[in-house]
Amino acid sequence: MKKIINQPDQFVDEVIDSLLIAHPGWIKAATADRRALVRADAPKQGRVGIVTGGGSGHMPGFLGYVGEGLCSGVAVGNVFSSPSSEQIFEATKAVNGGAGVLYVYGNYGGDVFNFDLAADLAEPEGIDIRTVLLTDDVASAPPERASERRGVAGMVFAFKCAGAAAERGDPLDEVARITAKANAQCRTMGVGLSPTILPAAGKPTFTLPEGEMEIGIGIHGEPGTHRGKLETADAIADRLSGEILRDLAAPKGSRVAVLVNGLGATPLEELYLLYRRTAATIADQGLTIARSYVGEYVTSLEMAGASITVLLLDDELEALLSAPARSPLFHDWSPA
Amino acid sequence: MKKIINQPDQFVDEVIDSLLIAHPGWIKAATADRRALVRADAPKQGRVGIVTGGGSGHMPGFLGYVGEGLCSGVAVGNVFSSPSSEQIFEATKAVNGGAGVLYVYGNYGGDVFNFDLAADLAEPEGIDIRTVLLTDDVASAPPERASERRGVAGMVFAFKCAGAAAERGDPLDEVARITAKANAQCRTMGVGLSPTILPAAGKPTFTLPEGEMEIGIGIHGEPGTHRGKLETADAIADRLSGEILRDLAAPKGSRVAVLVNGLGATPLEELYLLYRRTAATIADQGLTIARSYVGEYVTSLEMAGASITVLLLDDELEALLSAPARSPLFHDWSPA
Repeated sequence: MKKIINQPDQFVDEVIDSLLIAHPGWIKAATADRRALVRADAPKQGRVGIVTGGGSGHMPGFLGYVGEGLCSGVAVGNVFSSPSSEQIFEATKAVNGGAGVLYVYGNYGGDVFNFDLAADLAEPEGIDIRTVLLTDDVASAPPERASERRGVAGMVFAFKCAGAAAERGDPLDEVARITAKANAQCRTMGVGLSPTILPAAGKPTFTLPEGEMEIGIGIHGEPGTHRGKLETADAIADRLSGEILRDLAAPKGSRVAVLVNGLGATPLEELYLLYRRTAATIADQGLTIARSYVGEYVTSLEMAGASITVLLLDDELEALLSAPARSPLFHDWSPA
Repeated sequence: MKKIINQPDQFVDEVIDSLLIAHPGWIKAATADRRALVRADAPKQGRVGIVTGGGSGHMPGFLGYVGEGLCSGVAVGNVFSSPSSEQIFEATKAVNGGAGVLYVYGNYGGDVFNFDLAADLAEPEGIDIRTVLLTDDVASAPPERASERRGVAGMVFAFKCAGAAAERGDPLDEVARITAKANAQCRTMGVGLSPTILPAAGKPTFTLPEGEMEIGIGIHGEPGTHRGKLETADAIADRLSGEILRDLAAPKGSRVAVLVNGLGATPLEELYLLYRRTAATIADQGLTIARSYVGEYVTSLEMAGASITVLLLDDELEALLSAPARSPLFHDWSPA
């Protein structure tokens, strides 16, 4: 295990400490343990709050999507573990500006349990809560059980749309409707080449022989749908985009956003190669790419691998994706 | 070797193709082979052009620092190989707006040879050329031979200051003076944990036993100054920042910019841990951090490891670092 860390059991708290030191004016702690973090300007009166959360080890995942035009707050669990309901509840109170709070997070058992508990704590305090579960990983369940799918890199689009809708003053039900649509129109699928080692455990989350890849792997190393010989970038892109586009069934002529996400150890160059082939496939299917994102957006510590995400746009979602957003960890570029 | 690539000998050209597809409106090719790339709006009449270049495999290094308020053009070599003098010359002509062109690149033999040749081609065409060699890697030569040092992640600061000076209309000698100062006041030192494998060679650039690290390693795997047992994040940060700050000898009360750069496979979380300890050391020495950058800025494909860069600021450099810059691959965040 080669990691640049200090005490493994201090890993998450030291990372949070680092973020607070590195980027003053960005976020602030809502709890003494600093596991509930909110925008520096929270709460925003009259605006819907957006709270997300999940396990650590996915940077810039979760924390990096708190900011202007993004989420209002986040509850931070240990590596690959849900935050507690109390941490979520404290984030909720800290972002509550009187217009309700939307929970947006990935569909994982522990997270669902704790966010639901937090909602039970918040409602008696007069805070209206809505929840949108993110379920963009097509590899994690078949189409007829799409609601059981896990949430992965598509969260970036959900956070962006939710945050932009809240920022412009949309009411809670409207922000929830838009976020649910962003999730419903989003599909992701990943490939893993090497495992992650959790700092505290010191052991790989899975093993994968030299020369092999796992298609459909989850961001915690959850088993995929196919394991086999490592293929070319083009062949991998075809496998992933094939499943995604079949499942999404976007009408010809549609506009889409594409995100090629690195899971940690994969060079940016290789992500661009996946993008290139995916873009060609998308064009072949009569779709137009309106926005492109290539980089590390939701990682799994040092896992080698990548995922491809396609979001089917309409005018509403495209406008929200294009709206300003600001965080030290989210870079959003468009042609002038 | 687990890489998401197609034909290894097509790697660089496919990456360039991908970038052009992914980010329309950003850059354009100045040669048929597309190894000379310039800002979409080049040449800018009356503005100094900034040309950089180097080997591939360092993304977002080199290419990612072409954009508004950054470099005007780049010549792109094969992986870890210099671009040709012809490619540099073509980039030079394509960015020439009549106010001269500054070459800014890392101090490596092949690059120096080819940039000098390109300057010899450009001068007879009436294009005034100045050169600033980047030499920020303190591990690569002792202080008395500082001019022989290699250029590494400090290039980000040099590009940013040069580009901002050119953008506001500074004349060539002034842009060169500022860029030389940004280099002279900048120090970097790195640590390697695992090697890079070149796509075409298929073999590691060096070997490092399990449980060991190499302090002072270069971005092509050049040998460092110390090889030993892997240490904690804090101990590694102390080794790197200790050398850097000793060499920089910044007067107490100075303001600095800090960049913690990932070499490829190292998780963002770990980079933040290095930042945290470095920030504490800098504060202990009576210096103030004015700007912070944590992420992958100049990589070495999938090498695990990181580097720390400190730039001693004055009012002039701080203003230039704070000026707007725009590229899909460079994210520059400041508190509002």
